[in-house]
Amino acid sequence: MGKIILTGDRPTGKLHLGHYIGSLRRRVELQNAGGYDKMFVFMADVQALTDNADNPEKIRQNIIEVALDYLSAGLDPEKCTLFIQSQIPELAELTTYLMNLISVSRVQRNPTVKTEIKMRNFEANIPLGFFCYPVSQAADITLFKATTVPAGEDQEPMLEVTRELVRRFNQTYAPVLVEPEIMLPENATARRLPGTDGKEKMSKSLGNCIYLSDSAADVWKKVKKMSNGEPRMSLDEPGHLEGNAVFTYLEAFSSDEDFAEFWPEFKTLEELKAQYVKGGIGDGTTKKFLNNVLNKFMEPIRQRRHEFEQDIPEIYNILKKGTEKARETAAQTMCEVRSAMQINYFDDTELIRQQSERFKG
Amino acid sequence: MGKIILTGDRPTGKLHLGHYIGSLRRRVELQNAGGYDKMFVFMADVQALTDNADNPEKIRQNIIEVALDYLSAGLDPEKCTLFIQSQIPELAELTTYLMNLISVSRVQRNPTVKTEIKMRNFEANIPLGFFCYPVSQAADITLFKATTVPAGEDQEPMLEVTRELVRRFNQTYAPVLVEPEIMLPENATARRLPGTDGKEKMSKSLGNCIYLSDSAADVWKKVKKMSNGEPRMSLDEPGHLEGNAVFTYLEAFSSDEDFAEFWPEFKTLEELKAQYVKGGIGDGTTKKFLNNVLNKFMEPIRQRRHEFEQDIPEIYNILKKGTEKARETAAQTMCEVRSAMQINYFDDTELIRQQSERFKG
Repeated sequence: MGKIILTGDRPTGKLHLGHYIGSLRRRVELQNAGGYDKMFVFMADVQALTDNADNPEKIRQNIIEVALDYLSAGLDPEKCTLFIQSQIPELAELTTYLMNLISVSRVQRNPTVKTEIKMRNFEANIPLGFFCYPVSQAADITLFKATTVPAGEDQEPMLEVTRELVRRFNQTYAPVLVEPEIMLPENATARRLPGTDGKEKMSKSLGNCIYLSDSAADVWKKVKKMSNGEPRMSLDEPGHLEGNAVFTYLEAFSSDEDFAEFWPEFKTLEELKAQYVKGGIGDGTTKKFLNNVLNKFMEPIRQRRHEFEQDIPEIYNILKKGTEKARETAAQTMCEVRSAMQINYFDDTELIRQQSERFKG
Repeated sequence: MGKIILTGDRPTGKLHLGHYIGSLRRRVELQNAGGYDKMFVFMADVQALTDNADNPEKIRQNIIEVALDYLSAGLDPEKCTLFIQSQIPELAELTTYLMNLISVSRVQRNPTVKTEIKMRNFEANIPLGFFCYPVSQAADITLFKATTVPAGEDQEPMLEVTRELVRRFNQTYAPVLVEPEIMLPENATARRLPGTDGKEKMSKSLGNCIYLSDSAADVWKKVKKMSNGEPRMSLDEPGHLEGNAVFTYLEAFSSDEDFAEFWPEFKTLEELKAQYVKGGIGDGTTKKFLNNVLNKFMEPIRQRRHEFEQDIPEIYNILKKGTEKARETAAQTMCEVRSAMQINYFDDTELIRQQSERFKG
């Protein structure tokens, strides 16, 4: 069995540069590099509903946004299967059976679940569906027999739950499911992009996001307001790199070619940094450079998005075709799962034969 | 909307007289009385797997036993839909969405769940699937829009969870699901039949069961060993009704016609009891009478079972046809559920139209 890559996003908002750096850019690279058998990217609306049960409209409106972001960022439906989670009922079925193979306390001990519960201020009032999401996530991964899950380090405990469930299932029934490996980001800056305010995480609720679909004017407005770390009285004072979101963004996005194109005074980011900490470089100048860097890669995305936006029914059509394709794999695995569990009674001719003999004998 | 009746059993063993008195007899009466729109009776193998995940063979072998018990006790596939739970994947799907509408602590507070956890010595190691079964049960009931669930008093807290979930779903999305009512047994003796040892509950693990499929010889062997309450030195001593399983069984099974046929010295059970507590009636005699009473209604069941056993493939065929029929209802409800939740994106022409306009505008 070859490499099967699977990732997804909760469709609760447009994708921002944090998503792009944390996963989307990598996915496009993986897709274009080839070297895999199948690649699935899905919109996790079922998971999004676990803590948005009373607001399906939010999810309903954001599926198209995420789909447009995917396609305009370069995901290609010819190369990877894009699908919507809720349209694969086999996921719920597999989840049901995996839930029997893990204890309540094991799920409770999962650090990712603990963090998420805290983040959402759920405490005593955790929706049961949300509490069970590590198992539902294990079903997402195993139903497609994914070998490779590109994700951040914080997802490792979730993958560990998935591997435990796979081992438990395969031991109890038959070796049908596949243990997945996490594929971590290649370098530290790719792990988590801070918000424009320099806060740890880019997040819609903090209002510190640059969206992939932001216009050039919006990007510039947001870049201008970005945090530069400790304030300086004049540009002659030494600049601070710590807490300086502009430089974190440059780490993530700028290349030597960008310097050649927009700021030939410096060859590399290291050169710029060396000068910046000495003093003499204004924050307006670094921001203009960052703005150029961002717009250089965002402009083609924006243009593709604009084209895709002209034919929304076709986007749904792409998702529908992807979903149909994903469902073939899903149905095949569920067939193997049912057969391993021996709950495929109506097709189990051996069972029917044995019982016929037993009752007649 | 008319009356829709739904009940089921975990296929973990053959059905015994406890099942018959507690539910099966009533179901057959309800079925034959008519006055309902639909009646569903199902084998809850998915539920059985929640605490038998490592032993699907047990369930696999007992589905046919329960089916034979159903049919020979008088359930008629022309009048009620017999189906196997695991073959209705829509149940898992609805469960997934209902799980978002209830908190972990609400499930924990359910007294039935508490009792069951204690009974099974799970404590810290409760399988997650077992913990979630009140929600899965709510899906069983609501997927078929059951109005009426014949069950024992101990199931009332489960039905309350179901009603809460229905209200929550209908308020949050749209009024699709139906609040079910419990239909309690008509009288106290029908609520719970003690074991042959006089212990509170007939249960396979206690070895105190008379099975519906027991031979006449087996029944007599078990009746002979039945508890008579406090021991007497001779039949002249007053008999004790307390803890006397023979009399509890006679309460549940004997009729005045049985007296006329097998023990004309008494017209009614009340007459026999009056004499028994005075003394002069031997326990061998009451046991012979009970044996006659039991065999009178069990013999036709046995004969029908024997006939059904001759064609096991046909039994699976009956279950398959019932399952197909049940699945039509299930698919229809899930379609309404998805539409209420507005997650039927591909069929949602209004959504696609609105978004097309928004992106062009």
